Amino acid sequence: MRASLVLSRRDLDFLLHEWLEVETLAKRPRFAEHSRETIDAVIDLASRIAVEHFAPHNRTADEHEPHVVDGRVQLVPEVAAALRVFADAGLAAGTLDEELGGMQLPQVVAKAVTTWFQAANIGSSAYPFLTMANAHLLVAHASPEQVQTYVPPMAEGRWFGTMALSEPQAGSSLADITTRAELQDDGTYRLTGTKMWISGGDHELSENIVHLVLAKVPGGPAGVKGISLFIVPKHLVADDGSIGERNDVVLAGLNHKMGYRGTTNTLLAFGEGVHTPGGRPGAVGYLVGEQHRGLTYMFHMMNEARIGVGLGATALGYTGYLHALDYARTRTQGRPVTGKDPAAAPVAIIEHADVRRMLLASKSYVEGGLALGLYCARLVDEEQTAEDAADRERAHTLLEVLTPIAKSWPSQWGLVANDHAIQVHGGYGYTRDFPVEQFYRDNRLNPIHEGTHGIQGLDLLGRKVVMGGGAGLRVLAEAIAATTTRAAGTDWADLAADLDALTADLVRVTATLWSAGDVDVTLANASVYLEAAGHVVVGWLWLEQVLAAEGSTGDFYDGKRQAARYFQRWELPRVRPQLALLESLDTTVLRMDTGWF
Amino acid sequence: MRASLVLSRRDLDFLLHEWLEVETLAKRPRFAEHSRETIDAVIDLASRIAVEHFAPHNRTADEHEPHVVDGRVQLVPEVAAALRVFADAGLAAGTLDEELGGMQLPQVVAKAVTTWFQAANIGSSAYPFLTMANAHLLVAHASPEQVQTYVPPMAEGRWFGTMALSEPQAGSSLADITTRAELQDDGTYRLTGTKMWISGGDHELSENIVHLVLAKVPGGPAGVKGISLFIVPKHLVADDGSIGERNDVVLAGLNHKMGYRGTTNTLLAFGEGVHTPGGRPGAVGYLVGEQHRGLTYMFHMMNEARIGVGLGATALGYTGYLHALDYARTRTQGRPVTGKDPAAAPVAIIEHADVRRMLLASKSYVEGGLALGLYCARLVDEEQTAEDAADRERAHTLLEVLTPIAKSWPSQWGLVANDHAIQVHGGYGYTRDFPVEQFYRDNRLNPIHEGTHGIQGLDLLGRKVVMGGGAGLRVLAEAIAATTTRAAGTDWADLAADLDALTADLVRVTATLWSAGDVDVTLANASVYLEAAGHVVVGWLWLEQVLAAEGSTGDFYDGKRQAARYFQRWELPRVRPQLALLESLDTTVLRMDTGWF
Repeated sequence: MRASLVLSRRDLDFLLHEWLEVETLAKRPRFAEHSRETIDAVIDLASRIAVEHFAPHNRTADEHEPHVVDGRVQLVPEVAAALRVFADAGLAAGTLDEELGGMQLPQVVAKAVTTWFQAANIGSSAYPFLTMANAHLLVAHASPEQVQTYVPPMAEGRWFGTMALSEPQAGSSLADITTRAELQDDGTYRLTGTKMWISGGDHELSENIVHLVLAKVPGGPAGVKGISLFIVPKHLVADDGSIGERNDVVLAGLNHKMGYRGTTNTLLAFGEGVHTPGGRPGAVGYLVGEQHRGLTYMFHMMNEARIGVGLGATALGYTGYLHALDYARTRTQGRPVTGKDPAAAPVAIIEHADVRRMLLASKSYVEGGLALGLYCARLVDEEQTAEDAADRERAHTLLEVLTPIAKSWPSQWGLVANDHAIQVHGGYGYTRDFPVEQFYRDNRLNPIHEGTHGIQGLDLLGRKVVMGGGAGLRVLAEAIAATTTRAAGTDWADLAADLDALTADLVRVTATLWSAGDVDVTLANASVYLEAAGHVVVGWLWLEQVLAAEGSTGDFYDGKRQAARYFQRWELPRVRPQLALLESLDTTVLRMDTGWF
Repeated sequence: MRASLVLSRRDLDFLLHEWLEVETLAKRPRFAEHSRETIDAVIDLASRIAVEHFAPHNRTADEHEPHVVDGRVQLVPEVAAALRVFADAGLAAGTLDEELGGMQLPQVVAKAVTTWFQAANIGSSAYPFLTMANAHLLVAHASPEQVQTYVPPMAEGRWFGTMALSEPQAGSSLADITTRAELQDDGTYRLTGTKMWISGGDHELSENIVHLVLAKVPGGPAGVKGISLFIVPKHLVADDGSIGERNDVVLAGLNHKMGYRGTTNTLLAFGEGVHTPGGRPGAVGYLVGEQHRGLTYMFHMMNEARIGVGLGATALGYTGYLHALDYARTRTQGRPVTGKDPAAAPVAIIEHADVRRMLLASKSYVEGGLALGLYCARLVDEEQTAEDAADRERAHTLLEVLTPIAKSWPSQWGLVANDHAIQVHGGYGYTRDFPVEQFYRDNRLNPIHEGTHGIQGLDLLGRKVVMGGGAGLRVLAEAIAATTTRAAGTDWADLAADLDALTADLVRVTATLWSAGDVDVTLANASVYLEAAGHVVVGWLWLEQVLAAEGSTGDFYDGKRQAARYFQRWELPRVRPQLALLESLDTTVLRMDTGWF
């Protein structure tokens, strides 16, 4: 596959360098080894490996989904081969400290790298990205000994990691997990329970699998306050770091999905007695940090994972858009509406306005989504490495408020881009002879996992915009205002004025919702709030992009400008009826009696 | 499967009897044999066969898609068995004249029947419904001898029919078909060419397959004016009606689709010389009607097929909604936002506002879509059997303007209902252990076939609303006004006022678009026009429904009223920014240079 069908390097370069000016990060001690050259080199490397080793088996892995033979999960061999290349290139540890085997890349660069792999093959790329999120959590919250034991093998790509939160009866509601962890005399724990939806939960790709498992220690508080976090390796690890005996965690079943099939997704049983580590049943687990603080630690990882999900949704939408664009330029069909002379040759379908509408809409979604994801990753760098404490705090707050949007907006609109990509292909797009139908199936997962769309809405309206006395929304409004101020005197003053007005409305509507005097009413339409806020945020980032393009000429920049105009004229007007609905404290849904369905 | 998961009989009875008062059709000579009892009996029969014989193999047919063994298309055996039951019940000929073996059912009843089968198993139901559309076309345009030869075996379910329009290089643009038909001395034609996307194009389900093929007779006019229509049977038919020698039409390949897999979809080669009917190569074809009028005849069928596609999209959305509703009533998860006590038992997820939002939205889409499809079918009856010529003409005009909406609106919003059904199920909905993912894949075809979404937009704005000096839009506006007038003094006066205002805006915007002085500008955003008009139409039909429910009490009617309120408060406001965009004669898409992508 051509690299130009996977992701746009030109756009990525624009976002990273012309807009986010990532090489300025090299002034900070942590990134002192980096420069424009090293950043470009790692993206060159990533894009080459993604295109040459990941994209070619994307369809194969979809057609031959994981299955079990003799108790072992079988994947097509191309997956292991690609992951080996990935790890050998050092990409499994991009952001980790050098002393742990990492490259100490800025998060924003690391996310640009991951987006290449997600666009090339979302299924295979999930294994290392879950592993990285696991490693990051350990670095942040585990003991130095735990970090030394588990992180370097993951950084080398020899061991993989998972996140084991959900259970069959408890997905969105982690308060209800029932997996138990009982303290042993030696300070370890023994876990019993069942975990559902565990991606990468079992396979033969790595020497070991490090599960990070949420469980409850008996006697703790009820609900989420009684959740603790444990390391539960598939194989116990000897003191010298070598693989020891088999832990009592076993595969209980595979989930068969509509898409995203390359990523094996499992039901895992802990403490069933299938294995007897130390001579007796029970899955051996090691507490991370303190008891009962597991969910807090996990949210550290979840925020990273949510931005990653959003970027994955963008990546799938992006590659679908590029495929549709390529098809539209080459497929001929019909004639212009003003020149229906049947003797004239058919035109490329990109000449038809409705095809161009779908492509332009998609461009605005996927380039907007990529800007959003990279902006958030840049905030992570700011949160972690800004010199000034106030800057770090501000970045942290802005990131908190943007995270539900960074997760959900691309999951919604990247999927629309995938829908358009099928439509541009016509009947061919509906067949498995073209890749766009798979992108559509793959992307449909993203509004579900790592917190559903509805959960993100509650997170944004119920928590994020009101936290710290409204600091979240205030910081966001200030960031938008800083941009719109810069638009004064440019061609974009009207877009800036639209955004100022919408932001003011959003702030006012938020206050109205929270003065409803009834939390049920306040939160009833949180998904609408999420979607309205998302469009305002992406509109803002489109203004950011065109301001970064001010004074630059050529097709690329003209395309950015037209996409921004599209977003202004076609997309932002969707927000007004949403805000009006919210401001009216509409209770149509709330008052729908369940007996009336 | 429970019938209540396939379709709502209660809703169907409401629409047919309380709203459309279909039994009044029995006053007309054609339907004199029918009554409330016969109508209910045929729907009872259809629903029972759909639930017992079609629904059970819906997943099986998806998992084991058609494939070729020794040159023959293999389907799972349940398909043939179900179609046998269907035909034996007389359902293959519901609307045909009694003398052709039919039941002379009103179209509106026949469509209620087909919706049951589409909801139960869209893939298997396509075979008879394509056959019926084929038979209807022959009855309308073929010679009496052709009708006698081909229609009764199709009415008995012994022969099946197809529509062969598209070619690999010509889908939306039929002007460019290249299949040739050469007149022979005996008055027959010989066809050579390749047809693509032919559903039911080859299989072993029937004794014969009657292809209706568009082709060009050499020397005719260029473009669509040179297209003629031919009957090309798979097996030639002897004078006594028995199956004769094999015609020269062969399977050239199967298309492998994302969904809708139960319906075999084929590439067919005509006149390849694989068979030699009459001792020489060339597919024998029989002209239907006159030369060069083929597209006109085909549109007779296409309008029927488009309403059928819309109902199929509604049916898939409807069954998805019913599955989601059932799941939401039984699956427990989490607690109310105002009562997060972890010691309290989890609630059924229908108690969560965001789940109820998705269900209520879906209810408004699928019940609105069903009302739209049945209303159009009722118009077909009016067009064909109204006593007064002016009534027939009015019905014809209204049907013309509604057809692109009846095809596209459910294809868009029924799919949203399927999307919501997955989301309500969470991760489970994304697995193949639950049926909702298949409904979503199946339904994604509907915005593509029988004229894409973009083609419907051009049809509506470019032809239908301006035909007859604007008669199409005028008749629609009058029909809406007749309803809103009836709403005076009811609880629905505000919805009526909204609809009056939106209709006036739609009329004004239409005039503005057509006074642009540049057809490129007029038609640039035709898809937006289609979507805006669609929402106005469905809003109108929601008003029709609640007026039909006036004075009736109970959960069912309260549900109708709340869904209408939802549509008024949540859906109709989407239309305003669409109309504003259209009124501005926005050229953002039109002016997007293809080099800027």
